[in-house]
Amino acid sequence: MDSEEELVDARIAPLGSLENLSQREVEQILNAGRGDVYALFRRCALAVLSSGLETDDIRDIFERYRDFDIRLGRQAWGVKLELKNAPANAFVDGQMIRGITEHLFAVLRDIVYIHDAILGTQRFDLEDSYSITNAVYHILRNARILDYKGRPNLVVCWGGHSITAVEYDYTKRVGYELGLRALNICTGCGPGAMKGPMKGATIGHSKQRIRDGRYIGMTEPGIIAAEPPNPIVNQLVIMPDIEKRLEAFVRCAHAIVVFPGGAGTAEEILYLLGILLAPENADLPLPVVFTGPPSAAEYFGHIDRFIGATLGSAAQRRYKLIIGDPAQVAREIAHGVDAVREFRRARSDAWNYNWLLKIPLAFQQPFEPTHEAMATLELHRGLPAHIMAANLRRAFSGIVTGNVKEQGIRSIDTFGPYVLRGDKKIMGLLDELLAAFAAQRRMKLAGEYRPCYRLVA
Amino acid sequence: MDSEEELVDARIAPLGSLENLSQREVEQILNAGRGDVYALFRRCALAVLSSGLETDDIRDIFERYRDFDIRLGRQAWGVKLELKNAPANAFVDGQMIRGITEHLFAVLRDIVYIHDAILGTQRFDLEDSYSITNAVYHILRNARILDYKGRPNLVVCWGGHSITAVEYDYTKRVGYELGLRALNICTGCGPGAMKGPMKGATIGHSKQRIRDGRYIGMTEPGIIAAEPPNPIVNQLVIMPDIEKRLEAFVRCAHAIVVFPGGAGTAEEILYLLGILLAPENADLPLPVVFTGPPSAAEYFGHIDRFIGATLGSAAQRRYKLIIGDPAQVAREIAHGVDAVREFRRARSDAWNYNWLLKIPLAFQQPFEPTHEAMATLELHRGLPAHIMAANLRRAFSGIVTGNVKEQGIRSIDTFGPYVLRGDKKIMGLLDELLAAFAAQRRMKLAGEYRPCYRLVA
Amino acid sequence: MDSEEELVDARIAPLGSLENLSQREVEQILNAGRGDVYALFRRCALAVLSSGLETDDIRDIFERYRDFDIRLGRQAWGVKLELKNAPANAFVDGQMIRGITEHLFAVLRDIVYIHDAILGTQRFDLEDSYSITNAVYHILRNARILDYKGRPNLVVCWGGHSITAVEYDYTKRVGYELGLRALNICTGCGPGAMKGPMKGATIGHSKQRIRDGRYIGMTEPGIIAAEPPNPIVNQLVIMPDIEKRLEAFVRCAHAIVVFPGGAGTAEEILYLLGILLAPENADLPLPVVFTGPPSAAEYFGHIDRFIGATLGSAAQRRYKLIIGDPAQVAREIAHGVDAVREFRRARSDAWNYNWLLKIPLAFQQPFEPTHEAMATLELHRGLPAHIMAANLRRAFSGIVTGNVKEQGIRSIDTFGPYVLRGDKKIMGLLDELLAAFAAQRRMKLAGEYRPCYRLVA
Amino acid sequence: MDSEEELVDARIAPLGSLENLSQREVEQILNAGRGDVYALFRRCALAVLSSGLETDDIRDIFERYRDFDIRLGRQAWGVKLELKNAPANAFVDGQMIRGITEHLFAVLRDIVYIHDAILGTQRFDLEDSYSITNAVYHILRNARILDYKGRPNLVVCWGGHSITAVEYDYTKRVGYELGLRALNICTGCGPGAMKGPMKGATIGHSKQRIRDGRYIGMTEPGIIAAEPPNPIVNQLVIMPDIEKRLEAFVRCAHAIVVFPGGAGTAEEILYLLGILLAPENADLPLPVVFTGPPSAAEYFGHIDRFIGATLGSAAQRRYKLIIGDPAQVAREIAHGVDAVREFRRARSDAWNYNWLLKIPLAFQQPFEPTHEAMATLELHRGLPAHIMAANLRRAFSGIVTGNVKEQGIRSIDTFGPYVLRGDKKIMGLLDELLAAFAAQRRMKLAGEYRPCYRLVA
Repeated sequence: MDSEEELVDARIAPLGSLENLSQREVEQILNAGRGDVYALFRRCALAVLSSGLETDDIRDIFERYRDFDIRLGRQAWGVKLELKNAPANAFVDGQMIRGITEHLFAVLRDIVYIHDAILGTQRFDLEDSYSITNAVYHILRNARILDYKGRPNLVVCWGGHSITAVEYDYTKRVGYELGLRALNICTGCGPGAMKGPMKGATIGHSKQRIRDGRYIGMTEPGIIAAEPPNPIVNQLVIMPDIEKRLEAFVRCAHAIVVFPGGAGTAEEILYLLGILLAPENADLPLPVVFTGPPSAAEYFGHIDRFIGATLGSAAQRRYKLIIGDPAQVAREIAHGVDAVREFRRARSDAWNYNWLLKIPLAFQQPFEPTHEAMATLELHRGLPAHIMAANLRRAFSGIVTGNVKEQGIRSIDTFGPYVLRGDKKIMGLLDELLAAFAAQRRMKLAGEYRPCYRLVA
Repeated sequence: MDSEEELVDARIAPLGSLENLSQREVEQILNAGRGDVYALFRRCALAVLSSGLETDDIRDIFERYRDFDIRLGRQAWGVKLELKNAPANAFVDGQMIRGITEHLFAVLRDIVYIHDAILGTQRFDLEDSYSITNAVYHILRNARILDYKGRPNLVVCWGGHSITAVEYDYTKRVGYELGLRALNICTGCGPGAMKGPMKGATIGHSKQRIRDGRYIGMTEPGIIAAEPPNPIVNQLVIMPDIEKRLEAFVRCAHAIVVFPGGAGTAEEILYLLGILLAPENADLPLPVVFTGPPSAAEYFGHIDRFIGATLGSAAQRRYKLIIGDPAQVAREIAHGVDAVREFRRARSDAWNYNWLLKIPLAFQQPFEPTHEAMATLELHRGLPAHIMAANLRRAFSGIVTGNVKEQGIRSIDTFGPYVLRGDKKIMGLLDELLAAFAAQRRMKLAGEYRPCYRLVA
Repeated sequence: MDSEEELVDARIAPLGSLENLSQREVEQILNAGRGDVYALFRRCALAVLSSGLETDDIRDIFERYRDFDIRLGRQAWGVKLELKNAPANAFVDGQMIRGITEHLFAVLRDIVYIHDAILGTQRFDLEDSYSITNAVYHILRNARILDYKGRPNLVVCWGGHSITAVEYDYTKRVGYELGLRALNICTGCGPGAMKGPMKGATIGHSKQRIRDGRYIGMTEPGIIAAEPPNPIVNQLVIMPDIEKRLEAFVRCAHAIVVFPGGAGTAEEILYLLGILLAPENADLPLPVVFTGPPSAAEYFGHIDRFIGATLGSAAQRRYKLIIGDPAQVAREIAHGVDAVREFRRARSDAWNYNWLLKIPLAFQQPFEPTHEAMATLELHRGLPAHIMAANLRRAFSGIVTGNVKEQGIRSIDTFGPYVLRGDKKIMGLLDELLAAFAAQRRMKLAGEYRPCYRLVA
Repeated sequence: MDSEEELVDARIAPLGSLENLSQREVEQILNAGRGDVYALFRRCALAVLSSGLETDDIRDIFERYRDFDIRLGRQAWGVKLELKNAPANAFVDGQMIRGITEHLFAVLRDIVYIHDAILGTQRFDLEDSYSITNAVYHILRNARILDYKGRPNLVVCWGGHSITAVEYDYTKRVGYELGLRALNICTGCGPGAMKGPMKGATIGHSKQRIRDGRYIGMTEPGIIAAEPPNPIVNQLVIMPDIEKRLEAFVRCAHAIVVFPGGAGTAEEILYLLGILLAPENADLPLPVVFTGPPSAAEYFGHIDRFIGATLGSAAQRRYKLIIGDPAQVAREIAHGVDAVREFRRARSDAWNYNWLLKIPLAFQQPFEPTHEAMATLELHRGLPAHIMAANLRRAFSGIVTGNVKEQGIRSIDTFGPYVLRGDKKIMGLLDELLAAFAAQRRMKLAGEYRPCYRLVA
């Protein structure tokens, strides 16, 4: 809960099996010296440690803890981390909170694995759809996300980190109802709609005497500082980029609940619907519910109309909209998960990874939101729905980058806002939606909101 | 969270080892027919099932569910309960919440055990201090409360069920800080200060990856309807009466935290201090902290002055008062618990039951708050402190009975308020304290407050 | 697994929940001073500690360890035992073997419970069949034998402690095949046919990755010295006498396997068949297999003929005889256990205690084999089969007492052999059977065999 | 534990987390068609399934089960194996024994990992000592051998598969004494000295109530058919070749016990002593005990003299010889393991992998025992001790290959026995040792022994 503005030095030993790094892997980080991999690790580590500070101004965090340092050492139990000037809120009476310790080593594990086993070899052709899907699988397996052998029950929850107290309370109540039904939660880490369902599910699981509830956080290096993992998260995985993170979400999900959010949530919705519109996925069941308290009804009205106008009614049929009824959301999801189980059993697909889902390469290729790339996105009527979804997804991805990712913010500082071009109808709809997000203060947690984009019809 | 006004019929099988009743024990309940034991069981069962309804007007609950019925049957797995017209809020999609199922069978287990093995034999002389202490031990052992073999870490939390939102939030934050320090929680069941610490500790334990957190509820048949166990409670025990319940609290406690409350909390404080003033307990460590948010400072000022005036400064030295600092409360408790452990080790006392604590017989004998008994309580200056504490404890016990226990309410309805007599000074202090409780709405959760007593100087 | 002839002094603290004795219970033993309860406890404790010495000459053990002493003390963790001059084989490098520690405290727990809660109250009328059955249940429950909630799988194995190496190996192979089929083992403790099935099942369970295999030992104070529990036994219970021990066996059993043995095994067979012949049990399924290696075929031929001649073919239909086929024994048992499960489910009987089995009072009443009682047993043709079974059971019970129980041996030493009278046919059959036992050296493990009885036609 | 000569068809689903193969990995095996990887997998699978047949004539097994087929298929739970004409002894009533199922999928896991992540990438330079050590670590980690986080307690046991009943019983007794001291066992799989210690430890652990005992089997494709894993093995790993397998043994070991054996055991001894003679390892503690029953005293005399004569007294100081005293072996090991723990703690080395041990490249490079390679091994006096050890190790490795590995046997069939050249003294000692092995029937389990080598001085 609250934390003082103190700094702590500490040596942290890993817990469980997280410390099993080979000398080769340790060397890779150590040799990196002050290089890129180290810098990435330091940034992610700081994000994990500052969980609970409840600000999403990452430049502020990086500035406040500019003297933070973290070093790797070998010891009897494998590796050990030496921290200098770390945020005090990660500690209780001088001891690091166990959940945060686990996150720290999970970050180390994933960064090492991605660099050693995925990027640092020729095993995976990251321009190839099949190969990307396998790489995502290998990362998740290495993070032991796939160890779970129970029946399908993983509900991915999306939504904003910057939501109202009423909305936050609503996400807790939905999480509680999901937890009562023995469903587990996966979110993108961070506060708001990504924390509420986990807190609620913790209580629901407790009442049902479920001691092995899963609270999975899936994040990426660029966003972890803005959305650090809540310590409730008991399985954390760092994916290399937003596209692989989104693929991890949808291939692990047995159901998806979308709460109110901003540009990031819109990106997730467009990604999901774009994929579900692929003809290969026409018969594949995946329960999707958009939900919020009565005060969010208008928000979802906007979203729904925007989807209808840009992607059509086929897209609208892939989700249900439920306002103000947490128990009904949970019942709908539980029912839908049963159908998913039947489908997978019939098709002999794995329960822990949705191999059958087709993800077109356009949704897998990393989109680098340079000013040029943003300016040349095709956004006009007449595009096939899945192309439209892919491009709109990229547009929102760019807006998220400009809003909260470090290099995006720096780029906007230098070159001014992104320019997005498209035909009048689409630009009008987009303008309306983004204006609503801004008016509802969904775009950023702190500070005054300045748009990072300019729409040109 | 919310529940509809529906009724459910269900057959409930027990979980785990709770169903191991012998035919003899089952017969005792079955043969009881519509007799006393059955009536007691039905009343407690209804209380457990109505947990979450958030009212403490028990007459209202009993009236609303007057058609509720519960029957015992044998089946392959031992016993089974058949419920008719049970409150719907105990169920999720037709399935009873597992925590509530456990409570239901815990109630059955304890009622059977108390009648068969404690009251129904000549083994325990319930007029004898040593024998009472052993009977309390046997009941707790039968409820498996004593199975825990870890190091001392049980914090008993007392306080009102009817507290403000600010106070409730504060109890959660204290529970959270206790949970972060691997401390477990024991309360008297019910809402308010008895639920908040458990909810907070659940989150704290979750962050520290403590999966076997203990949330013990100790209640008694007379109060369970007004203060039903929150389903977070994962060990429930029903003690035969308030005196044995209080003995169970203090013999199991490694530390005690007192939050703001009403007459019940005052009873607990006086019981505790009365015992600790016994010369045999002079050197026995037991950390006691009175705490609340800044808004409760005045309340505790009243309590502190009342104690000083009636029991003296020796009593005041047995507790610490900490306002508005949950982390400090937890540190104080953690520190004190270390001293308890050292003391017990040095004296070879058990860690799960404080045999060394002296409880004078005056605090063990059940006090039946008839109008006559209340009217003849000695409450005047000059009494030895521990006699004063014992009699004040009885006075508050009577007020609780008149406020929230079924037979007490009925008795007040019939004969009018209790009369309490004492010398002017004491009566004045008491009046002031009780008036403050009433003004702060601490005496009852719902309905208009009508005092169940009259003070006569 | 040999042991040296050394003596060890040690202080032993209990493990798990076994130490939860109340002061009252500890007092009962302590106050007992050098009295009966203490003597009983010392004798049983010595038996547990001498497990592995592999002699059944109890007088020898008691003589060799005549300086053995055991005292009870309180300490932080409840109670502690102080041992003087204990057999060294119970220790590994000065530490008591954990399994033996558990047995020691199990003995304490059961002796305390039997004296405090069964014999020391008026709760149970031990002349009444229903009451005896409930007392047996309460003792088993207190020993946590009934906690297990899995599906029926408990196979009671009977047979001699003094069997040939070939027979012993066969019991291991049967245990192995039972273990491979996830069946658990219950025996009377001791070596030979009571140890082999447990050793075999341990390996079978290990291959099937069953980590919670149950190896239950049920014994009684009079026999424990001659048949101490093998440390593999992970649940031990001491029943007050042979009749309650036999009742515990048959009410817990989901199937029974009988290996070759001597008089004790004959007692068990006659008890079992006598009960199963009761008309109330006619339809109650209980798989019973008599089995041994080919070398035991003649032995079982004797037994089978004796049963046919004394109890008739109805008795013979209650068991199957399988020679030299361990896998077939296990298949037969597994199949029979399925039928037991179906039957109990259909009749709503408990899975962990066979309440439906009728045990006539004649089989429940303790039989004190005085010389007079033995001499007046009715053993002539024309008796109803179940009376004949009851009396023959008593006759063999007396022979066991005269052979291996301390007071029996002393009585024979003083008064000479028991005299058994009956008509010629029966006496002839009995003589033939007992002569065969003696010839096959099944009557005693060590020393020369002198019959403790004389048959008079 | 016998088995009939039947064949079984079955579909086997994996257990636990073993089935987490990516599509890419499954494809690699499937695409392999009838190629090398598939052939390797089929051979290893058949070996696992024929565990318990107790023959080490692998040509006989491969002949008897020439129609055995195994195919990989995808299904809901990941992958599934379809077996045709599999040995019946792997099944109980049609169900595959769970331990064998685990082994089958462990084989699949390791073959896939070795080909996909070790051999199939440029990540590891398998000509480089550091890189080999890391590759061994990665294989062990992938097999979850390194997950264990308890204190050092792993005892590697070496010795022959073809030993006398007296020796086998002795290995069980040593295993029992190790198990009583909470030590775990690692062997090379197979019967004899590799099975006995595990069986003994199973009983020892059971008596100490250790439910998570580790029985690790480390094998290699070439030997698994001759020495299939006993189903007690609960962690199995397949290393790519004998050199990496030996490295895995010594880096995981906290102590090593050597029982009597033949050429394979001699190879292990020479490997171990050769490494320990490296100057870098001079101060590194590693308890090594050679032990056997009194009947093995002569055997170890031979070994000891051979070591003294070829490697010198420095080598002899690295082991203790204990004859006929299982408890003393276990005490010696337990004591030595304490020193290992202190050393690792002081040097901050990992507890689950001995990074500090120096293994010269000569001991890591695979030795291909062609006739030419064998003929050109330098084996004359004057070589430095560690070179001598390396070359003798290779000589014995070749003899093992010629005796029990498939391609070795074929090669001998074609080209006649290997020729080993060296100076007279060395050849004389070798001849004496090998003759003793043959005379004691330690070279092969079944059939008549024909030497696969010829010594030329």
